Amino acid sequence: MSTARTPFTLAPVSGVRSETVRSANLATILRELHFHGPASRSELVARTGLTRSAIGALVGELVKADLVSEQRAASDGSPGRPSPVAAPIPERNVTLAVDVAVDSLGVAAVGLGGVVLRSERIDRPRERVAVDATIDDIVAMVGRIEAALDPGVRVLGIGVGVVGLVNRTDNSVSIAPNLGWHDVAFGDRLQRALGRKVDVVVSNDADLAALAEVRRGVATGAREVLYVWGEVGVGGGLISRGEPITGAAGFAGEVGHVPVNPDGRPCRCGSTGCWETEIGEGALLERSGRSPDGGRDAVDALLADADAGVPAALDALAVEARWLGIGLAGLVNVMNPSMVVLGGLLGRVFPYVHDEVLAEIDRRALASARRGVVVVSSALAGDAPMLGAAELAFEPVLADPLGTLRKISTRR
Amino acid sequence: MSTARTPFTLAPVSGVRSETVRSANLATILRELHFHGPASRSELVARTGLTRSAIGALVGELVKADLVSEQRAASDGSPGRPSPVAAPIPERNVTLAVDVAVDSLGVAAVGLGGVVLRSERIDRPRERVAVDATIDDIVAMVGRIEAALDPGVRVLGIGVGVVGLVNRTDNSVSIAPNLGWHDVAFGDRLQRALGRKVDVVVSNDADLAALAEVRRGVATGAREVLYVWGEVGVGGGLISRGEPITGAAGFAGEVGHVPVNPDGRPCRCGSTGCWETEIGEGALLERSGRSPDGGRDAVDALLADADAGVPAALDALAVEARWLGIGLAGLVNVMNPSMVVLGGLLGRVFPYVHDEVLAEIDRRALASARRGVVVVSSALAGDAPMLGAAELAFEPVLADPLGTLRKISTRR
Repeated sequence: MSTARTPFTLAPVSGVRSETVRSANLATILRELHFHGPASRSELVARTGLTRSAIGALVGELVKADLVSEQRAASDGSPGRPSPVAAPIPERNVTLAVDVAVDSLGVAAVGLGGVVLRSERIDRPRERVAVDATIDDIVAMVGRIEAALDPGVRVLGIGVGVVGLVNRTDNSVSIAPNLGWHDVAFGDRLQRALGRKVDVVVSNDADLAALAEVRRGVATGAREVLYVWGEVGVGGGLISRGEPITGAAGFAGEVGHVPVNPDGRPCRCGSTGCWETEIGEGALLERSGRSPDGGRDAVDALLADADAGVPAALDALAVEARWLGIGLAGLVNVMNPSMVVLGGLLGRVFPYVHDEVLAEIDRRALASARRGVVVVSSALAGDAPMLGAAELAFEPVLADPLGTLRKISTRR
Repeated sequence: MSTARTPFTLAPVSGVRSETVRSANLATILRELHFHGPASRSELVARTGLTRSAIGALVGELVKADLVSEQRAASDGSPGRPSPVAAPIPERNVTLAVDVAVDSLGVAAVGLGGVVLRSERIDRPRERVAVDATIDDIVAMVGRIEAALDPGVRVLGIGVGVVGLVNRTDNSVSIAPNLGWHDVAFGDRLQRALGRKVDVVVSNDADLAALAEVRRGVATGAREVLYVWGEVGVGGGLISRGEPITGAAGFAGEVGHVPVNPDGRPCRCGSTGCWETEIGEGALLERSGRSPDGGRDAVDALLADADAGVPAALDALAVEARWLGIGLAGLVNVMNPSMVVLGGLLGRVFPYVHDEVLAEIDRRALASARRGVVVVSSALAGDAPMLGAAELAFEPVLADPLGTLRKISTRR
């Protein structure tokens, strides 16, 4: 029954010309080094299925392009010449990553291989969240970050995460309720403001956080992942067969707006009883007797109360746990993930209500889908969207290393 | 901004050996002919991006393998030799498709290119739904179907749809509540009973119906599709980037068990307030004053009443519409599909409540995700799972034509 797992693909058919094979194989090697770190030729043979001589030639091309360096490894004591070790060159090849959150802005330079070379985050008052001010701040931060990098550095791409719905076909922000943005051509405007020819790609912050989790975080290597991120609002990122589900226009994953209580509280989206009205920061704080607008300080106080066994805090967390479990159970039934990662507020709350959440999932998810699902808190915490933005910006060079470098240098 | 749509793939890296290119290109041509019908060499050049001489050689190999025939087309009046037209040979290359529903069994022989050559469906009383009786019935039906086929026919695969949760890694049925099956190694047992060496692949019937809709039905060519099928129970099939989402073990798409009313009616799955408790056949019938177990006849009577303007029927449909819209809105927010296809009872009901359902979706889905979503009833109706099962069984030969034929002939 060896065909049982054959995926029934519906992707558009297209032929493979033999000249594209070399380019695909260069990409394979570079991805391997970027995702899994330095590797000897023998390791690359084992991991890619390519022949040793093919690996030698391909790595040689990546070295010539200054993407990869090769060093003779110290002898491991076995006879014969040690296999040379190839490694990405992070200080020469970077992406710039930007995270547009509600109360802060982050910018980082991330080197090939995923090393964060420099990063800066600024808190910002509510009056700085307008589009123009945001762009001004990013331009200034990018300037500072770039000034501190090696002179020979190449910027391979700029990735941006925004706390809002992003249209991935044109890098515009459709709506970002917590920023008050509506139909903003953010990618284009930022690119012009930066005065750079390199592509700016924009995506939803929760989608990027999910990407970071499967590449560099707790879900590394997992192929079916449900990432749920919650603070004031609740968003999500869905990974299926190792790839993000973006939907028709990049809006997939808005799990915070699944109706779980259709006659419940009004939601900022205009509906009622969305999941985020039950598990978002506002609901949690209100149930503990605090102002729903108390923000992070109020959450800290609530969790401190819970640590001290204060009943109001424990009760609020119990209700939070029930609704968290209800929504997760539905999503587990829809997606059959192998891992659920909780980020932001939800990742902080989860350790307090672990048993209650799992019990609610047990009660409501189909046993077959439930079996084998691991629920964990994110380990990357607040930096996940920025790390994901860097990965997004690396994509072109990882998909076609030499072609992308050619394109970048032509534009200069 | 040409890279904006670069998918950020996380798929495992693996090198392309040049000897696999030929096999991939054979698959490309065969898929093209299977999905889109006969094509001239010029059309194949345009559709696949391969060169004319490569197409000639590849089609030649498929002809030699008896998968494809080539005929000179009648001259179209333009100068020069007309381009020969390649077509799949359905009568020589078939899959057997089986549909295990609650009150009926279907078997069909489907030829390459998607032509249904023979099919048979039998109604069955409740006492025939046990596993052994089901297998006996299928074996008898397959015998009759095969006896009527051309003597030179090759069976390339056997695909089975089951109204239950199927573990696609081993073709077993985890649970099929409406059949009373639990952990049945159905694929293995059916394969043994048929005494055939060809692979038997099993999948969930709603997943297969979704597959049929995107390949041969109302969603042909759509790449982001949400298929929701409802009768007594409610299931679904999710298509993203043109491919079905199966989840970690094949259980994805159980949209009927998303909690939409957590304090609502008990569900057969053990939870409460699942979507199927609000939109399934039982709830609809009960709200119209009928027995929830009235079955298809009672639904027919209800819809006849609605046609006649009977208030109880219209009221029941209005409530159905509201809950249908609530659940769909949540799924639109999660998946951002370009098309929603409603099958079974839901496909029959939808024309009656079209406006109400869309209004509820408008109220609850995020405008960005909602924009551009088309909601339609299935056109394939009851045969969708069987057509999808045939497609599933064609997969191995479409993925590797000559390799799969070799495997099949070796086993004989």
